Amino acid sequence: MKIRVYYEDTDTGGIVYHSNYLNFCERARSEAFFEKKLSPVLLSGHFVAKELCAYYILPAKLGDLLEIKTSLLELGHASFKLHQEVYRADIKLFELDIKLAYVSMQGRVQKLNSDIKEMIMSLF
Amino acid sequence: MKIRVYYEDTDTGGIVYHSNYLNFCERARSEAFFEKKLSPVLLSGHFVAKELCAYYILPAKLGDLLEIKTSLLELGHASFKLHQEVYRADIKLFELDIKLAYVSMQGRVQKLNSDIKEMIMSLF
Amino acid sequence: MKIRVYYEDTDTGGIVYHSNYLNFCERARSEAFFEKKLSPVLLSGHFVAKELCAYYILPAKLGDLLEIKTSLLELGHASFKLHQEVYRADIKLFELDIKLAYVSMQGRVQKLNSDIKEMIMSLF
Amino acid sequence: MKIRVYYEDTDTGGIVYHSNYLNFCERARSEAFFEKKLSPVLLSGHFVAKELCAYYILPAKLGDLLEIKTSLLELGHASFKLHQEVYRADIKLFELDIKLAYVSMQGRVQKLNSDIKEMIMSLF
Repeated sequence: MKIRVYYEDTDTGGIVYHSNYLNFCERARSEAFFEKKLSPVLLSGHFVAKELCAYYILPAKLGDLLEIKTSLLELGHASFKLHQEVYRADIKLFELDIKLAYVSMQGRVQKLNSDIKEMIMSLF
Repeated sequence: MKIRVYYEDTDTGGIVYHSNYLNFCERARSEAFFEKKLSPVLLSGHFVAKELCAYYILPAKLGDLLEIKTSLLELGHASFKLHQEVYRADIKLFELDIKLAYVSMQGRVQKLNSDIKEMIMSLF
Repeated sequence: MKIRVYYEDTDTGGIVYHSNYLNFCERARSEAFFEKKLSPVLLSGHFVAKELCAYYILPAKLGDLLEIKTSLLELGHASFKLHQEVYRADIKLFELDIKLAYVSMQGRVQKLNSDIKEMIMSLF
Repeated sequence: MKIRVYYEDTDTGGIVYHSNYLNFCERARSEAFFEKKLSPVLLSGHFVAKELCAYYILPAKLGDLLEIKTSLLELGHASFKLHQEVYRADIKLFELDIKLAYVSMQGRVQKLNSDIKEMIMSLF
């Protein structure tokens, strides 16, 4: 998953605004679904962030071409954890650990059934 | 309606990113509803942009305190037009003419009934 | 220029937030520079929006793959005009006419010299 | 610091997009400077996020009026840590721990001198 840095991603400090790295990582998670012709919005619910820790190593700038790498850390009963890294060429700029819960459209936490668990394992 | 310019609103050019002035104007339109304890999401539909023309006069910068002025230009059968201006102190920075249509949640254009017309006239 | 619609681009109305189409068009303008190993930030200045008119035809949704088409309408002394269209497959969703001025880093309008004019004609 | 949730803050899931809580917290940090007629951009540098952990408790929705509470956790040689909480009325929706470093405009980490340390202690 490659992402270009555009004007909208930067701020007046001349670098990518801190929360936009989370957007880049979310794009990579959604794209994992889309490229297999799946949607991150399932019939019975969708995934929401519950916890995350982010580490800013080096800043990205306008025009940078970033690569996002995603791996599955843990698969629980109603949530899963991913580790995501943002690179420019072979330089690591950013790391994210994120726990995503599976919730109904009304926001209630739901169990991941075996079909959804298999899907998650095939995607990440 | 006063709006402060924060880092997220700026870009690496050191000024507010061009599309964020549209966001500021949308905030002012929604706030007109919220401050009267109303919601811009009605039972039978909501409002979407159909056309807009925007004029960039002077740039806003980090920390600027902006004021948005909104007036009703025209009220039609299924849409209405607003004129909005963004000021810093008494200097005009930006102007917007926007046509908003009333559509159902499925996206079908709907007639503005007399209750909704009265509401629009009382808000803007 | 293909752009995927992600969660960040949508709003609670279930469609792409109106100002994000301007961001998509800006990405296409910047990408025209980047793909030729150029930067939209030149030594002597950069380009800023002066006027734009936007036409919303049909909404885009999460997961849509959009294509942006850009053409040069007019090339003036200190500004130029582009026409941009956003498509999903062969359905036109959005149109933009935008006038961009060439300004110094301090924000003063500058003449487009012949090198910059040639560059613009080669990009769009 | 009160923040209204507008359309731009929400996504197609009907709730505030996860990274926008970071924006809300950044607005509160910058506003602490602005309301004392100070700027978060100092002569010798500015502050950038180095690490953060975020906890999503309950979602915010369109029209919600949020309150951000900020407290200083730790003040180091070249960085400081804040704890920030986002409330809707007296319900806590979100928590953030963030470490901010003081860097020069070229991005080099700089020592916080005693003037800047005093300023930080007076702001948070």
